[in-house]
Amino acid sequence: MPKDDLQVMRDLMDAQRKGFALPRHFYTSQAVYENDISTFWNRNWIWVGHVSQVAELGDYFLFDYGPESIIIVRDREGEVRAHLNVCRHRGSRVCIEQKGKARNFICPYHAWTFDLNGKLRNGRSMGSDFDPGQYGLFPVQVQIFQGLIFVCAAEDAPPLDAALERLAPLSKPFDFENLKVAHEASYPVPANWKLALENYLECYHCAPSHQDYSRSHSLKDPAQVLEFGGALHERMGEVGVPLEELDLTGENALAPGADVYWRRYPLFPGYVTGSKDGAPLAPPLGELKGHDGGATDLGIGTLNYFLVYADHVVGYRFVPRALQETDIQIVWYVRGDAQEGRDYDKDALTWLWHVTSLDDERIIRHNQEGVNSHQFVPGPLSEMEWSIPGFYRNYFSMI
Amino acid sequence: MPKDDLQVMRDLMDAQRKGFALPRHFYTSQAVYENDISTFWNRNWIWVGHVSQVAELGDYFLFDYGPESIIIVRDREGEVRAHLNVCRHRGSRVCIEQKGKARNFICPYHAWTFDLNGKLRNGRSMGSDFDPGQYGLFPVQVQIFQGLIFVCAAEDAPPLDAALERLAPLSKPFDFENLKVAHEASYPVPANWKLALENYLECYHCAPSHQDYSRSHSLKDPAQVLEFGGALHERMGEVGVPLEELDLTGENALAPGADVYWRRYPLFPGYVTGSKDGAPLAPPLGELKGHDGGATDLGIGTLNYFLVYADHVVGYRFVPRALQETDIQIVWYVRGDAQEGRDYDKDALTWLWHVTSLDDERIIRHNQEGVNSHQFVPGPLSEMEWSIPGFYRNYFSMI
Amino acid sequence: MPKDDLQVMRDLMDAQRKGFALPRHFYTSQAVYENDISTFWNRNWIWVGHVSQVAELGDYFLFDYGPESIIIVRDREGEVRAHLNVCRHRGSRVCIEQKGKARNFICPYHAWTFDLNGKLRNGRSMGSDFDPGQYGLFPVQVQIFQGLIFVCAAEDAPPLDAALERLAPLSKPFDFENLKVAHEASYPVPANWKLALENYLECYHCAPSHQDYSRSHSLKDPAQVLEFGGALHERMGEVGVPLEELDLTGENALAPGADVYWRRYPLFPGYVTGSKDGAPLAPPLGELKGHDGGATDLGIGTLNYFLVYADHVVGYRFVPRALQETDIQIVWYVRGDAQEGRDYDKDALTWLWHVTSLDDERIIRHNQEGVNSHQFVPGPLSEMEWSIPGFYRNYFSMI
Repeated sequence: MPKDDLQVMRDLMDAQRKGFALPRHFYTSQAVYENDISTFWNRNWIWVGHVSQVAELGDYFLFDYGPESIIIVRDREGEVRAHLNVCRHRGSRVCIEQKGKARNFICPYHAWTFDLNGKLRNGRSMGSDFDPGQYGLFPVQVQIFQGLIFVCAAEDAPPLDAALERLAPLSKPFDFENLKVAHEASYPVPANWKLALENYLECYHCAPSHQDYSRSHSLKDPAQVLEFGGALHERMGEVGVPLEELDLTGENALAPGADVYWRRYPLFPGYVTGSKDGAPLAPPLGELKGHDGGATDLGIGTLNYFLVYADHVVGYRFVPRALQETDIQIVWYVRGDAQEGRDYDKDALTWLWHVTSLDDERIIRHNQEGVNSHQFVPGPLSEMEWSIPGFYRNYFSMI
Repeated sequence: MPKDDLQVMRDLMDAQRKGFALPRHFYTSQAVYENDISTFWNRNWIWVGHVSQVAELGDYFLFDYGPESIIIVRDREGEVRAHLNVCRHRGSRVCIEQKGKARNFICPYHAWTFDLNGKLRNGRSMGSDFDPGQYGLFPVQVQIFQGLIFVCAAEDAPPLDAALERLAPLSKPFDFENLKVAHEASYPVPANWKLALENYLECYHCAPSHQDYSRSHSLKDPAQVLEFGGALHERMGEVGVPLEELDLTGENALAPGADVYWRRYPLFPGYVTGSKDGAPLAPPLGELKGHDGGATDLGIGTLNYFLVYADHVVGYRFVPRALQETDIQIVWYVRGDAQEGRDYDKDALTWLWHVTSLDDERIIRHNQEGVNSHQFVPGPLSEMEWSIPGFYRNYFSMI
Repeated sequence: MPKDDLQVMRDLMDAQRKGFALPRHFYTSQAVYENDISTFWNRNWIWVGHVSQVAELGDYFLFDYGPESIIIVRDREGEVRAHLNVCRHRGSRVCIEQKGKARNFICPYHAWTFDLNGKLRNGRSMGSDFDPGQYGLFPVQVQIFQGLIFVCAAEDAPPLDAALERLAPLSKPFDFENLKVAHEASYPVPANWKLALENYLECYHCAPSHQDYSRSHSLKDPAQVLEFGGALHERMGEVGVPLEELDLTGENALAPGADVYWRRYPLFPGYVTGSKDGAPLAPPLGELKGHDGGATDLGIGTLNYFLVYADHVVGYRFVPRALQETDIQIVWYVRGDAQEGRDYDKDALTWLWHVTSLDDERIIRHNQEGVNSHQFVPGPLSEMEWSIPGFYRNYFSMI
């Protein structure tokens, strides 16, 4: 009996060797890609932005991934809401502009009109039996953590509350609530989204591939993380950064898709933040009394990652566009009252992760090219790639 | 057991909810698209042109859709014939130029030579057992209605005769036989052909989407069609347009694929044709004594549509190029003896359906984008979209 | 029960009519294409270059086809070796530059380092149980015939030795060992690789399609091959070209994929080589005492073809890039001590097969367009296309 591509996928999941990379099929099958969107992306929390982007009533922006589009809007009651950007009539995109201020959403095809809360207002020529109450925009779940907005298209989104409750006191001094977007950039990579995410999940490649990052960040060498860790802890105490770590990932996750990770590691002596010369890039965030010279790896859910310096936050997501097309999207945040030119220089602020992302585009592309070989056999993962099996575990649990 | 894409399609057909739009699968599956070509397009009548384009012996032109190509030619006996543009040897395109005058068709690969009637002339080095009579170009059925040429690749083309016989007296005064092509244009749309066709089939979207059309055409509002219908009938009588309507579509169709539809509706006061200022665009067609200020929606088969004004005819077809690539092809016809510059201005003539097609490109594109969502659920159709279920009925009966 | 595309392929193989072309499915199915790569290309010998390209230790070049990439390198022991260009860790391309000189191969992702012979040197952070001996680059088989390098990704490559042993004395006087590359060119064709190869395999199309070739080469007409064959044999004897022919193809092949073919045919009077004016293009190859005015069709395996004139050799391969994208790659060789400008003019040398390949690009493209029709029915092959069924036989025996 012929096996379809999803059956091949399930057989490979059963045969998956612990501590090894995934087989080719996961990165080359169109059916697997579509399943990734419908069962993994549509059922996980996705970081889409920050409350400052929907500060006033009617402010909205779109977030697109794969064939999906989500409207994020502040409604008339002041709530941040999210809706599927698909008309309930014949499926047109309802909202076309990437961001703006709206009084309501009028479908450009047949003018079905939806309130900011998604409710359908009328149904022109729909007959007397038509009940507009049945045809509001499909709601998308929203979770806001200290100003960061996450959405999930599924009704039964992974339960994040318990994990975020434990995270809250650790990130509190950084005052994420009052960040502002300093810059956004997108790096298109001709590779499957999982290869882009796996690249982010490990620093085994940092030393050979990222010279600039490795000059300042100890994570490229576990021994050096230890070596400079004590001094970092001392400075963390001085400036007001909590010392705790949190690892609710892999086997420790409270539920599938509800991973949270927070761990701060030292920059090398001479670097107080992720800058080229080691000097500060912006005023300390939130309540911090200064620069501690640390960087926190923060993960929320399985798709959303942040690097938290003392003076800025960099957010990362790996947005699928097609089977082998992915956008690495990066957002740089500084404290909300910082002014460009006076308090920070945008080019200096974004330098490190701009050059590092150009490196990554290259190595992820070469990774996909090799994985495409019919003769590729996945090899063993190193000790420094420990978080990749955690991702696989999550991925397998939901697809 | 895995289901292939066509089985998924058949299950969806069984579950299709009356009066609702079609599910995503019909617009996103490559297998469904290929089936559309092989079972629907290849078995339906397609309007390809007008006899004036093959006026003399040897005149030919090509019509292409999906992966198919048809040669339409006037042969030595004076008959309009159509052949599959595929060599019977190893399958090369036989005819490469889009139009011209030929004495015969010589395959550019191995020089197999076919007469204008499709007969293979010789078979160089084919051995003594070879019978050229077995290897003529595959014939394509031809139906000519008052000068309009239709082709069908299937041997058992839908029987159009009876329906066309009933149509003939209604269109006769417009003298389609003596039309000439004033202009042709193609509007590429990144959407499945069915979304482009469905867009044409309903005027529910006219008011919100087509400001220019809606300024002059009452079809955008059924109440106004009624309001101005009486006066139109009076003028139709005066200029010589028959008053009858004909609706052999949907359940009234005489056979699957044999739909014919003819219904004239009023333009708004001040408009005698589909012009920007309401003034005539060209001399009245055929035997008409003047401009009645009406517009006839004419459909022949399930794929071919025309809008018949008193002074010009606009033909529309929605030609598949790929799963989500379609060309909206439009041809403007005026009476055969009209001269550009003297009797009509091409820019004025084509203005309305040029701007309207630009609108349509945009809304059909947004429709496809939304339909691509894994979460799209087809909604209920309005009363003004009554002809879409008729199309679905036809479509389901043949795929 | 639904049939998958490979099952459809197998059914078509069972139903294949002897002496007829292949059905559409073999040229339009993505599954068939992927199977072509994994079961035919990866298990056949592919001509990739000449030993002069890896003259010194560490010299390497890449050969890519479909999603595959092979490194060909001269190792420290002086052996020509080939490796799969895929890291044994997570599958990155190991070697990025198309050619160069290397001391070792360092994967650009995580710096796994391989010796020129493919052995993995170290395994940074791989734990104490890690055995680098298990993770060398996958070896690719290498066969060198008189300086021409062939590779095969399969462990059980077709046994070529016996056939090449019989070929050796026939080609020996041309001294392939000491050729040098005069020029390389690639002609992209939007067609399946099999259509490009089939085009090369027959000269039925030469007369109608290749005017320049047909002006000088008798192969376009079997009768003329005979007519001028006697005089050619006489001149072959004079300049030192062996008179024997060798046809180990089709039913005569010693093993599937082990075909060898060598047959010399006359140019027309006035032509001593494949030049525009008939005059010599370069000094006679190897031990030849002059120009005999012949051209040898040489085939080695099922994928590699050469045309051997008295003063240069032209090599051809038809490299798959995607289902309907193929590169016709051509290499012109002259004797190793010939100097451009003094001994040969590159434009004159490459003229014939440049213009002929432009012809071929066009006719193969039109062939694919027609074969894409759902209504294409494969026709009978002519007597001059006798070698195409031989290719099908080989193809069917391995897929």
